[in-house]
Amino acid sequence: MKRILIVIEYDGTNYKGWQQQKDYATVQQTLTEALIVTCGHDLTVHASGRTDDGVHAIAQTAHFDTTCTIPPERIAAAVNTKLPDDIKVLKSFEVSLDFHARFSAKRKTYVYKFYTAKVFSPLKRFHYTLVPQQLNIEAMKKACEYLEGTHDFAAFKSTFCKLSNTVRTMYSAKIVNYENIIEFHVCGNGFLQHMVRILAGTLLEVGKEKYPPEFVKEIILKKDRSLAGKTCEPQGLYLKEVEYVVKEQN
Amino acid sequence: MKRILIVIEYDGTNYKGWQQQKDYATVQQTLTEALIVTCGHDLTVHASGRTDDGVHAIAQTAHFDTTCTIPPERIAAAVNTKLPDDIKVLKSFEVSLDFHARFSAKRKTYVYKFYTAKVFSPLKRFHYTLVPQQLNIEAMKKACEYLEGTHDFAAFKSTFCKLSNTVRTMYSAKIVNYENIIEFHVCGNGFLQHMVRILAGTLLEVGKEKYPPEFVKEIILKKDRSLAGKTCEPQGLYLKEVEYVVKEQN
Repeated sequence: MKRILIVIEYDGTNYKGWQQQKDYATVQQTLTEALIVTCGHDLTVHASGRTDDGVHAIAQTAHFDTTCTIPPERIAAAVNTKLPDDIKVLKSFEVSLDFHARFSAKRKTYVYKFYTAKVFSPLKRFHYTLVPQQLNIEAMKKACEYLEGTHDFAAFKSTFCKLSNTVRTMYSAKIVNYENIIEFHVCGNGFLQHMVRILAGTLLEVGKEKYPPEFVKEIILKKDRSLAGKTCEPQGLYLKEVEYVVKEQN
Repeated sequence: MKRILIVIEYDGTNYKGWQQQKDYATVQQTLTEALIVTCGHDLTVHASGRTDDGVHAIAQTAHFDTTCTIPPERIAAAVNTKLPDDIKVLKSFEVSLDFHARFSAKRKTYVYKFYTAKVFSPLKRFHYTLVPQQLNIEAMKKACEYLEGTHDFAAFKSTFCKLSNTVRTMYSAKIVNYENIIEFHVCGNGFLQHMVRILAGTLLEVGKEKYPPEFVKEIILKKDRSLAGKTCEPQGLYLKEVEYVVKEQN
């Protein structure tokens, strides 16, 4: 038996998130069905983590075990012939049997994309959160500085999140902007439920000058969800990278 | 009676192009129906030009005449409430009655977007042409130089194009690239049927090193469609700007 790690890109628009669900098309279910046909036996696909309804992945990772004889590197191309156009496996390779897509992950990077435009944008509607006003980019950049480091992010979790340990380390948090696009890139050792979307919502408030960048420090200290911004919509969120061996930081 | 100019963004994915057609949803028809409801009378929408099935517009322009009492600038917001999410009017304003969206146009700019990736990209599938290999960007940039200026572009028109005068002036032709995205931007006084897609297909051949950049000069001189590249797919093409008063070039 071999354990295979796959890297998956998907457009989350037409899926009810990653996690298998009764009565809804999900990424996990679609991928699992295609892998079962490809490998010729039943199997379970374990992702690095769930993504919500409408959230995208530039490079989600997942593992599964197989007894099939397809060379590991060729599983990607084989399963892609069975997958719809909105889910594709970018690569596949063998890993050791003690590797786990979720528990072996060291770092994850998410990107949240905003698009500022007075009028709703047809071309960006499924892949950005549209913001109908200009934002104060410098203030958003400044606010990102307060997110870096090890903090208790209790203020930035969904009220449904059951986790008791809410301390996480953010290795980097930054704003990249060009034309009318503002991207929030955040890399950390783990994330709470809805954390990136709440962080994005908080940065949005800073960008709109509802409160100054320094207030982010206070939100962290007070651990109060009601002080943080709204949970931003899912279509602006992308799981960008899952790292298993820590690379040198640039 | 007032003549109104509108600037329209649309995602062409779900339309059979601009031009009204029996049995198919088109941008012109969808927009016309929404404007009729908004203005309260029958009207005809005249675009700067047609776009093909699947082609997008960042800023298409069109005019129509109306006797409605809505202030011209507010027609955009009014009609947007009647339009689907994949077509939106970015702005509307009054123009003189001798203005014509097509015949008054001085320059048009198109962008053709390529995305290079070994595996088909779910996230880019409707908005880029996917190229499964690296391209020689420098060669593509060099080839663009031969497109600028006034030339007979007979080699770069669809075999169905009936136009006899095939001389056009390209004010600028350039390649912009970042990450895995390669954009071909071209601004001219007019374009033949499928011209931008054939130019993009020719640059693609140059990028793949099927022939050197200088060969583009020869294709122009020989006026032979069979020497130029294939007509690139529609989903990579965007009508980016239509200019009525010539701006200073940067």
